[in-house]
Amino acid sequence: MAETDSKWKKTALLVIDMQNDFILPGGPMLVKGGQAIVPNVIKAVEVARGRGIPIIWVVREHDPLGRDVELFRRHLYSPGKPKPTSKGSFGAELVDGLEIKGDDYKLVKTRFSVQTPNCIRQTVFDAVALDYQSVTVIIDATAAATPEIHVANILDMNNIGVTAPTLAEWAESNT
Amino acid sequence: MAETDSKWKKTALLVIDMQNDFILPGGPMLVKGGQAIVPNVIKAVEVARGRGIPIIWVVREHDPLGRDVELFRRHLYSPGKPKPTSKGSFGAELVDGLEIKGDDYKLVKTRFSVQTPNCIRQTVFDAVALDYQSVTVIIDATAAATPEIHVANILDMNNIGVTAPTLAEWAESNT
Repeated sequence: MAETDSKWKKTALLVIDMQNDFILPGGPMLVKGGQAIVPNVIKAVEVARGRGIPIIWVVREHDPLGRDVELFRRHLYSPGKPKPTSKGSFGAELVDGLEIKGDDYKLVKTRFSVQTPNCIRQTVFDAVALDYQSVTVIIDATAAATPEIHVANILDMNNIGVTAPTLAEWAESNT
Repeated sequence: MAETDSKWKKTALLVIDMQNDFILPGGPMLVKGGQAIVPNVIKAVEVARGRGIPIIWVVREHDPLGRDVELFRRHLYSPGKPKPTSKGSFGAELVDGLEIKGDDYKLVKTRFSVQTPNCIRQTVFDAVALDYQSVTVIIDATAAATPEIHVANILDMNNIGVTAPTLAEWAESNT
């Protein structure tokens, strides 16, 4: 039990880009695989809260004029364009069922970004480069445009020592 | 002609991890797809020299005790282990046919690292995040453990606006 406690004391859960503009049908930043994993993300957050793991919400909240957006997607912020995840907009809100609570952290970012191949992977590679001892991606609480892209990226992460349990495995693991 | 000149004045060629330990059969860091693309890398360097493009050689040259290596591969530097790309070793030398010359740059790194899914991709994502206006990966002068992994990663890079010409296309392009 002490061992379990100490493990979770050194763990944090990152929830990335679970905002309406990425998830809802027709959203301007739609990740096709996103909506299917919302229930698992909700469950992962519940498990983390139960374990007392800090939750870090990583979100985009852009300048409506796009001045803090990557150059290659700045055109989406021109007049008449959808201005994805602009600060204060409905699209920037977390999807239904997810909520930032008292002791959580919120991290606003202006670079990658969404989906297994972009933000999740960049975050994971950075963590490994920084010598985090254990980096875990919950394989069925993350998604990409297609299952093939998702799996190809999980494989690359496996190859640098990252583990990728299912939500059920992660929720049941004590070590 | 002036246009061509100005384009190449703003271009650099990065050559990454083309060292014996990554490329030669039996090398301790072998990238299976590596040896097949050596002739194309040699040719890309020739084309770049012909255009007056700066060449940046990105290599690993590790402490033989592995103290500057990622945690997940530090075990390779224990006594009796191969100590990949240790500074001064044969394994750290560039493969035959590649040579650092007068005005080239040499950049020694201790983090990712080798292959399309790791160093090449990390470098590309960083460049896009830093708003480099044009980022190009020569598709047949880069490699991974398998063609499938290589292609999956090229696809992810295409999806963030990166172009991936063949060496022939790149060598013939003037704009």
